[in-house]
Amino acid sequence: MTPAASLVFTTLLSHGPLTRSEVARRTRLSAAAVTKAVRPLMELGYLVEGVHEAARPAVGRPANLVWVDGGRALFIGVKVTGDEIIAVLADLCCRVRVSRHLRLTGRKPETVLPALTALVQELLTEADGFGVRVRGLGIAISGDVDRSDGLVRYSPFLEWRDVPLAEIAGTATGLPVTVDNDVRALTVAEHWFGAGVGLSDFALVTVGAGIGCGLVVNGRVVSGAHGVAGEIGHVSLDPLGPLCHCGNRGCAEAIAADPAILRAVRAATGRQVRDAAEALDLAHGNDPGVRAVYARAGEAIGRAIGFLVNLLGSERVIISGEGLAAYDLVAEGVQDAFAASAYGTAAQCDVMTRPLPFEEWARGAAATAIQSFMGSDMYEE
Amino acid sequence: MTPAASLVFTTLLSHGPLTRSEVARRTRLSAAAVTKAVRPLMELGYLVEGVHEAARPAVGRPANLVWVDGGRALFIGVKVTGDEIIAVLADLCCRVRVSRHLRLTGRKPETVLPALTALVQELLTEADGFGVRVRGLGIAISGDVDRSDGLVRYSPFLEWRDVPLAEIAGTATGLPVTVDNDVRALTVAEHWFGAGVGLSDFALVTVGAGIGCGLVVNGRVVSGAHGVAGEIGHVSLDPLGPLCHCGNRGCAEAIAADPAILRAVRAATGRQVRDAAEALDLAHGNDPGVRAVYARAGEAIGRAIGFLVNLLGSERVIISGEGLAAYDLVAEGVQDAFAASAYGTAAQCDVMTRPLPFEEWARGAAATAIQSFMGSDMYEE
Ligand SMILES: [Zn+2]
Ligand SMILES: [Zn+2]
Repeated sequence: MTPAASLVFTTLLSHGPLTRSEVARRTRLSAAAVTKAVRPLMELGYLVEGVHEAARPAVGRPANLVWVDGGRALFIGVKVTGDEIIAVLADLCCRVRVSRHLRLTGRKPETVLPALTALVQELLTEADGFGVRVRGLGIAISGDVDRSDGLVRYSPFLEWRDVPLAEIAGTATGLPVTVDNDVRALTVAEHWFGAGVGLSDFALVTVGAGIGCGLVVNGRVVSGAHGVAGEIGHVSLDPLGPLCHCGNRGCAEAIAADPAILRAVRAATGRQVRDAAEALDLAHGNDPGVRAVYARAGEAIGRAIGFLVNLLGSERVIISGEGLAAYDLVAEGVQDAFAASAYGTAAQCDVMTRPLPFEEWARGAAATAIQSFMGSDMYEE
Repeated sequence: MTPAASLVFTTLLSHGPLTRSEVARRTRLSAAAVTKAVRPLMELGYLVEGVHEAARPAVGRPANLVWVDGGRALFIGVKVTGDEIIAVLADLCCRVRVSRHLRLTGRKPETVLPALTALVQELLTEADGFGVRVRGLGIAISGDVDRSDGLVRYSPFLEWRDVPLAEIAGTATGLPVTVDNDVRALTVAEHWFGAGVGLSDFALVTVGAGIGCGLVVNGRVVSGAHGVAGEIGHVSLDPLGPLCHCGNRGCAEAIAADPAILRAVRAATGRQVRDAAEALDLAHGNDPGVRAVYARAGEAIGRAIGFLVNLLGSERVIISGEGLAAYDLVAEGVQDAFAASAYGTAAQCDVMTRPLPFEEWARGAAATAIQSFMGSDMYEE
């Protein structure tokens, strides 16, 4: 696809049926450029033009609209967590048609990869029922992922190093495979369909087992020249703070991620607190020491977001992740610390929360597969 | 200009005379798209095609090249510092033809603006000698500048608030005026002609009276949704650090900018050190307390750069500014702290220094005027 065609396509994905003149206005392309972009996509049936049922007026002549024909192609998106694999079958509009979960018995590639392949095969069988081909598989993995090579360089959470995942999954499934960092994949979905629609500069910060961050700058997801980007979790906030697994002290992740909170709650209470849920119970039971741990986590998240917004001038920061379960305990700290660290007009940034279940992450993986499909020669069958 | 035309034009600005096929390769446009972009620019004389003197081979037939005809238009670029105004007359290739300096007797708008107008008039008179019209004026100002409105919202250094500079300078000179943050303007020049040529992700960090930062992400300069971006100077590195004028503690600017260094050197020596030069002399005289101040400044700069690169995955960071005078004293601290804070492959980022005299900053302002000219309907005379 040409850059103009891809812009038209993603605009229709995000905003649904539009008139041609509305497409031109939103993409800032000329009417002629829109026509040129639309024609081949329409010939192949990826776009449709006509009277859309959603836009039939009560009186008068309905406007001619253009939209993406979601049913024209299918994609599979997979998110791998430490405990399970979540896979979705999504259409070309990235609407989820079928979803599947599979519990994992281990995190090693030799355990995860056969399970992943089996789940994809299940969805391929489901896809047969739709009578449409599956055109790509997207896999979202936490950690340092090189999308262009399809390589998981290092996933601390899964303890994977240099796993050529795109190659392995491609051979096993016969599909074109896109492998990307999970937060980056979720950021694509948020940009197309979520709280980032229409924004050229926003960030998604996920808080939970780790602290992740996806960035959209000047309308595009940031990947970084060497594959690393959005490492807001390793902003060192305090040179005397707790030691982080990256080797530095006082990183946001070493203060505000679940394992750090758990460690701090154990230290504050002297109790063998088992997990995040138990720590949360103690905090909700008004243990002041435990509440202070969460307040400190909130402050760390707010400061880290302040740095990010001061640097990029983002319009919105979306906070998500399992950590939202404790958000009532950290909210005040986040807001106060962000307000204190935001410089000048950066304080106008809208810091919001938004729960995104793992199925949304799998949908993000499907969105990356749609991206790759758009980048490939989709004009060829 | 269409996006494709602007891409072709800036590619020729950065890389000089190229064959059409080389333009296509570098811009990733089709041959047809290059032809379409080149034609109107050639008709107006902004681009020229033929045998370029620099590329005439000793034997054989010379290749047909396309290049920007620098002499086809002139621009004025102005940088205002606390002490002086530097103005350059630059051609369409942003080559400096004439430059002028004017010492300022004060920093208030009522002192600076008449001086600026007089200097621009001088250069307009010079331009008459070239027989080519001046098509735009770019002004670079430190601080929070809204380019789209031409408004200096707040320049701490000049102590200006809400000065509608584009409007005032436009009325006084009759030129189309572009006002931008000075570091962002310099970043444009570095991207087109300097150490950022060919890079899609880099940062320019300026150290001196303050700490500034210009960012290029995905090939474009970052402006931020609310006008603030690149505020690396207000990354708080240490909650117990020195108080910053922004209200926070331990900001990079409160540790590593000239006034902060001066304060710390006075505290370390008990002497009434007058200025940065005297502080530098003491350090070069091997006063260990003074050297420690510079080492700490280097560490702050290195950590701030580490945050930036962890977030954006930049390929290169260019350190510049008057602060380079002390770079031998801070270099080790910068490198060590950067290496310690860089996460994973982010450490591969090339951190380099590059002296850029104020005339380069004025040239950056001229580059923003060329940008605006390219964005305007330059097809109309
Ligand atoms: Zn860390
Ligand atoms: Zn500050």
